[in-house]
Amino acid sequence: MSEKRYGAFLSFEGIDGSGKSTQARLLAEALRQAGHDVLLTREPGGSPGAEEIRSLLLHGDPDRWSAETELLMFTAARRDHVERTIQPALDAGKVVVCDRFVDSTRAYQGITRGDLRAKVDALHALMIGIEPDLTFLIDINPNIALARATKRVGSEARFENFGIELQATLRAGFLNLAHRARRFRVIAGNREEDEVHTDVLRMAEAFLGPA
Amino acid sequence: MSEKRYGAFLSFEGIDGSGKSTQARLLAEALRQAGHDVLLTREPGGSPGAEEIRSLLLHGDPDRWSAETELLMFTAARRDHVERTIQPALDAGKVVVCDRFVDSTRAYQGITRGDLRAKVDALHALMIGIEPDLTFLIDINPNIALARATKRVGSEARFENFGIELQATLRAGFLNLAHRARRFRVIAGNREEDEVHTDVLRMAEAFLGPA
Repeated sequence: MSEKRYGAFLSFEGIDGSGKSTQARLLAEALRQAGHDVLLTREPGGSPGAEEIRSLLLHGDPDRWSAETELLMFTAARRDHVERTIQPALDAGKVVVCDRFVDSTRAYQGITRGDLRAKVDALHALMIGIEPDLTFLIDINPNIALARATKRVGSEARFENFGIELQATLRAGFLNLAHRARRFRVIAGNREEDEVHTDVLRMAEAFLGPA
Repeated sequence: MSEKRYGAFLSFEGIDGSGKSTQARLLAEALRQAGHDVLLTREPGGSPGAEEIRSLLLHGDPDRWSAETELLMFTAARRDHVERTIQPALDAGKVVVCDRFVDSTRAYQGITRGDLRAKVDALHALMIGIEPDLTFLIDINPNIALARATKRVGSEARFENFGIELQATLRAGFLNLAHRARRFRVIAGNREEDEVHTDVLRMAEAFLGPA
């Protein structure tokens, strides 16, 4: 039997400084070494059109758009990313490892900027549809995450913009999402990189099976 | 009784070369002269954020986004336009005259680029909500519209991109929309500007009442 298999869609979520981007990269590398065909991507962005929209969102005054307008633009970028990058990779049987996906929108737009949770879900169901098969929530105390983030240029300012209280709210939001869907794996992020990676890799391999 | 009145939202629709932009301007001027407080605006665009999105849509290869992604971006621009320009003007009691609104999306995205009509309506209901109070459809045979458009720099190329058959499909789409909502007024556009304007102004004044 050499029937071609459909791919798998793995996402990483967590607050700033949780280490999720590092873990996404480490997992992609380890799965490649194990013989999987892996695509590593990220949001916002991940395709040329989505990067154009990302650039529009990240430059200029971020408050010049409302939460609803921003939500529509993130969804436009996600639609492009899914159509051009994620879905073709899944159709080709690849393992897609994505740094942030719709759960970030659920947490950030749905919790921090007005009561948009129902709209986020309705919009996702209407225009995107796909959910990850497996989602790693790298969970960490915001105070530890802040100490880490201050070591990286540019991260500190963004973290401070959100503030430690908002990060705590986001963390609770992510945990709440994780408790409501079986695809989540909550990973303790306040440990050494390689310890976290070992747990992530073990769970990913248990889900994927042999390459 | 000097109770402050809510404004009125008038839109103009029609295929390229129908003369709707000219008619929107002429109506705005005439209503101002009659003592109304008028805001003339247009789509896509009509607010700084929406103009940024418009610019992203109009520059570069227009086929680099799918119909669904384009629909999300038009809706993001419309959300910004409504929040920042249209709704504040209505709240201040103004008569808003808008060159194109959601019916253009219903016709262009819903008819010309895949069977997106149901998605256009669901997305509008979810993220925008507002419909014009009165919509002038400037109706014209595409062959006559093309002869007009070729006199304007830049219009011809766009018209030819769509093609005369597609313009005929759009015209039928607009007429179909007009037959399904009482807010539409279908105006014969194959006449002199001032004849068309006289009809439009009469109907607008009948709807608005005295200034």
